[in-house]
Amino acid sequence: MTKQTLQVQGMSCNHCVNSIEGALQEIGAKGKVDLANNTVEISYDENMISFEAVKDAIEEQGYEVV
Amino acid sequence: MTKQTLQVQGMSCNHCVNSIEGALQEIGAKGKVDLANNTVEISYDENMISFEAVKDAIEEQGYEVV
Repeated sequence: MTKQTLQVQGMSCNHCVNSIEGALQEIGAKGKVDLANNTVEISYDENMISFEAVKDAIEEQGYEVV
Repeated sequence: MTKQTLQVQGMSCNHCVNSIEGALQEIGAKGKVDLANNTVEISYDENMISFEAVKDAIEEQGYEVV
């Protein structure tokens, strides 16, 4: 299991939290958004999912991984 | 037809726009959110819908009409 904290731009409200955490859940990863710090704590099985897939899932929702 | 521009707090992103405009549509009103100015331009038939109902629809989504 890989754990990482990403800096993500553009997250502003609880709708954003839900869209990001939901998108990560859909690909089998877990995400915890911290709005105050503009971060997403992600955990995923690196044998199943690539970091690129995690990043893409967030960026497809309209946010930028810094 | 009544037209009014409301000051609304807490609107931050396109999800917010959709939730407010959608909620107004559901009660038969029209809303146009201006994120930059924190306003919602509403239009509704005052014979069908009260101002209170319009205000409630917005506040039920978690925003405050000032």
